[in-house]
Amino acid sequence: MKSLTPSYQELIQKDIARVEDLMRAQADGLTDDLKAATRVMIAAGGKRIRPALALLIGNLLGGDIQRLITLSAAIELLHTATLVHDDLIDGALLRRGIPTLSSKWSPGATVLTGDFMFARAARLSAETGSLEVMKIFAQTLSMIVNGEIEQLFMTQCMADRKSYLQRIYLKTASLFETTAISAALISSENPEIHQQFAKYGYSIGMAFQIIDDIMDFTADAIKVGKPVGNDLRQGIVTLPVIIYTENHPDDEEISSLVNGKCLEEDNIKRIVDKVKNSDAISLARNEADQYVQQAITNLNDIEPSVYKTALLELSSFITQRDS
Amino acid sequence: MKSLTPSYQELIQKDIARVEDLMRAQADGLTDDLKAATRVMIAAGGKRIRPALALLIGNLLGGDIQRLITLSAAIELLHTATLVHDDLIDGALLRRGIPTLSSKWSPGATVLTGDFMFARAARLSAETGSLEVMKIFAQTLSMIVNGEIEQLFMTQCMADRKSYLQRIYLKTASLFETTAISAALISSENPEIHQQFAKYGYSIGMAFQIIDDIMDFTADAIKVGKPVGNDLRQGIVTLPVIIYTENHPDDEEISSLVNGKCLEEDNIKRIVDKVKNSDAISLARNEADQYVQQAITNLNDIEPSVYKTALLELSSFITQRDS
Repeated sequence: MKSLTPSYQELIQKDIARVEDLMRAQADGLTDDLKAATRVMIAAGGKRIRPALALLIGNLLGGDIQRLITLSAAIELLHTATLVHDDLIDGALLRRGIPTLSSKWSPGATVLTGDFMFARAARLSAETGSLEVMKIFAQTLSMIVNGEIEQLFMTQCMADRKSYLQRIYLKTASLFETTAISAALISSENPEIHQQFAKYGYSIGMAFQIIDDIMDFTADAIKVGKPVGNDLRQGIVTLPVIIYTENHPDDEEISSLVNGKCLEEDNIKRIVDKVKNSDAISLARNEADQYVQQAITNLNDIEPSVYKTALLELSSFITQRDS
Repeated sequence: MKSLTPSYQELIQKDIARVEDLMRAQADGLTDDLKAATRVMIAAGGKRIRPALALLIGNLLGGDIQRLITLSAAIELLHTATLVHDDLIDGALLRRGIPTLSSKWSPGATVLTGDFMFARAARLSAETGSLEVMKIFAQTLSMIVNGEIEQLFMTQCMADRKSYLQRIYLKTASLFETTAISAALISSENPEIHQQFAKYGYSIGMAFQIIDDIMDFTADAIKVGKPVGNDLRQGIVTLPVIIYTENHPDDEEISSLVNGKCLEEDNIKRIVDKVKNSDAISLARNEADQYVQQAITNLNDIEPSVYKTALLELSSFITQRDS
């Protein structure tokens, strides 16, 4: 988290608190164990970028605040549910610096907690009262799972730009796109506006994931709350490595990745350092910046307002964050 | 499966085949492994009671067959997804006589396959085009997960009739209720009809689960495809045991269950035999029959038709099946 709170956060601070209340309320009536687990996952919640996106877009378009809060809680709960299952899938022990549920609980209890959050997310999305939003929501859940499947089974140890972009779209940008278009759908009847914000959300999401992937090389392990070089260790090849292989076609140590052959554990640390100390990091950062630039072109014909300014701020925060 | 095919099955045989095609089509585009796993789960599919229920009710009310097939596939896929996660949660090695996914795969791959099916089920439910159906669908997912949670955490080793009935409603009857009301919703505009079929589905579902629980004591392990006495071994106390404790308040060996104290492994086989050889089994069967009788009172004022006859047949099949 940046030490200086950006003003987009101040603008929606109270609404974000209401989103978090609504998320927490979903655990009411559960056993103490499950309630605690659900609340820990919710409290660990990070930057709330997705609710911020929904609230700013919805407010900008004059949407009903209660429906926007419901939508935001649905989206953030869906996101949190995918994290619970992801940690089980990855076997991760830490997430955002705290132990994952799956490191402390049985797979059964973990999967159930995730399922519970999915179910509640779906219920909240129904409470927005928009069939369109529910349809998109179901579609997105399917896309996120497909992204996970590609990551786990289909693109392991492959340095392929096209499949990387496809995968980060499915796994991350699809939910940003859904967040943006859903907020627009419940706040405006203009289909052009819906499409404009869908594109905005898509590009912001792509930038967000590229920065995440860069941080797996550059970040302070303690700040990010997970070990550095984690992706490559799991056979997940991200943009910095792809750029490095594109620019160093003769580096034999790393070229095997092109053929889906995984690196040996002994080599990973050296390769992480190689990539980290090359220009691949700044080139990857440039690509993220381009996505952000592309995103904000979709705001060009929106009239100036405090919410537009905040959205522009949020857009640049995406690439400037360091955790 | 009964050796003599009941005619309700003949009546909808072709539609059931279309439902199965649509379910299988959901796995298109997956990796070979996941496609195979998904298809094995779908092929193992059992009796297709839920699609049969949706198709018969929908046809009886003159609903659109394409929407009914989509709804049926959504419901059966949701059911199949819960089985995939259940097996992981229970640590079950066999389901319907074949090895479970979770016995052969990592928890991660299993959870992902289940998530994929949930996602596709939600997508199919959206394709029915009914906001009401989608809302009920999301609600039901939440109820099923809550039922699992109660089973795993809250009602372990407790012989309590009220919490048993609540649990089997959440875990099983809720989806039967949803199946019936959803089929009615997309086939009729009469709210009384919707409620009538909701009640019908509820009662059929309660009977279905009671029979399942009885079979855990009485069934041929090979036919059912899982070991007998499984529930009690997992601390799940079902109606036959509850009736036995009600009728034998002085049986010290079993009375500890009332207080949520689990039985020791050494005692379980003896207690299973005790319950099995008492009148608790036939008394439990009577209760299931009463639910079926209650169910069909909701069909009283429906005009005679081939579909009404088939629904009555399906109703009695619920308690007559032996697997």
